Amino acid sequence: MLSRNRMLIRSLVSSSVPCTRNFSGTAPPPRQVLKTGDTLRQTRIFTNEDVAEYSKASHDSNPLHFDSEFARNAGFEDRLVHGMLVAALFPRIIASHFPGAVYVSQSLHYKSPVYIGDAVVGEVQATNIRENKSRYIVKFLTRCFKNDKLLVIDGEAVAILPNLVAEKVNVVD
Amino acid sequence: MLSRNRMLIRSLVSSSVPCTRNFSGTAPPPRQVLKTGDTLRQTRIFTNEDVAEYSKASHDSNPLHFDSEFARNAGFEDRLVHGMLVAALFPRIIASHFPGAVYVSQSLHYKSPVYIGDAVVGEVQATNIRENKSRYIVKFLTRCFKNDKLLVIDGEAVAILPNLVAEKVNVVD
Repeated sequence: MLSRNRMLIRSLVSSSVPCTRNFSGTAPPPRQVLKTGDTLRQTRIFTNEDVAEYSKASHDSNPLHFDSEFARNAGFEDRLVHGMLVAALFPRIIASHFPGAVYVSQSLHYKSPVYIGDAVVGEVQATNIRENKSRYIVKFLTRCFKNDKLLVIDGEAVAILPNLVAEKVNVVD
Repeated sequence: MLSRNRMLIRSLVSSSVPCTRNFSGTAPPPRQVLKTGDTLRQTRIFTNEDVAEYSKASHDSNPLHFDSEFARNAGFEDRLVHGMLVAALFPRIIASHFPGAVYVSQSLHYKSPVYIGDAVVGEVQATNIRENKSRYIVKFLTRCFKNDKLLVIDGEAVAILPNLVAEKVNVVD
């Protein structure tokens, strides 16, 4: 199972839409129990197709996302990726490690624009874990970065996890 | 122009995926200037296809959205619509009335589950408007309801609007 996971991780890292995930700190065992301070990360490069697909699903057709000249006239370098699509990294990271996670709340502060082609690292750090009726209410610090350390989104999320044992690979990319 | 807008609104209301929009209060003129207290609304019924499309765009494949038995075992009536897809109503409502709106922040508190087929009313109410460098920083109370008055999502958003004159119909459904 471990070798299969490693193969999957390797294939995701080397795909055209990079997607990596890891617990920070010491090398993780095959199945790791989440504890306060742990950070989960995934990286995604947003493409033209992603923006078009998200717009179709959300019905959000703000010209900032589709018209380069409009976006530049508004003071941006080019067309923007929808902020909520970038923020979708957070529930994706949580649910891919803890299938069945139920979102309770999310705050989002948009700090820097994300352009098509930007590699965005999403990370969620468990800051509080509380057991309640055989489930776990977990507060996460949720942040996205690009260009290594440029903060793109800052915020917090609270989710109810069915358990604290992380599934390491279960996202379909 | 007004009659074209009325026709479009009528066609949206009667479509299989209902989408209505209006300022609350007195009957709106063709182009209305946003003021504190104004509420903008849109209604959407989320379908199987919407959930599949959103999952494709977001890469979020939490089994709560795809496996009825899994969702029922977790205490829900059936598969859930992604919370962030429902919440996408807010930037959609804002951007469809004010193209070029830039999101600054959004808080989301998930209060009730949304199931496929639920008609969800999203509404954004302007609670503060401040002019800054020929643009407008607007704080909105953002809420979604279903079954008339059941609160689904509660929160607040801040967006920068290029102007306060609302475009009434410009969403592609």
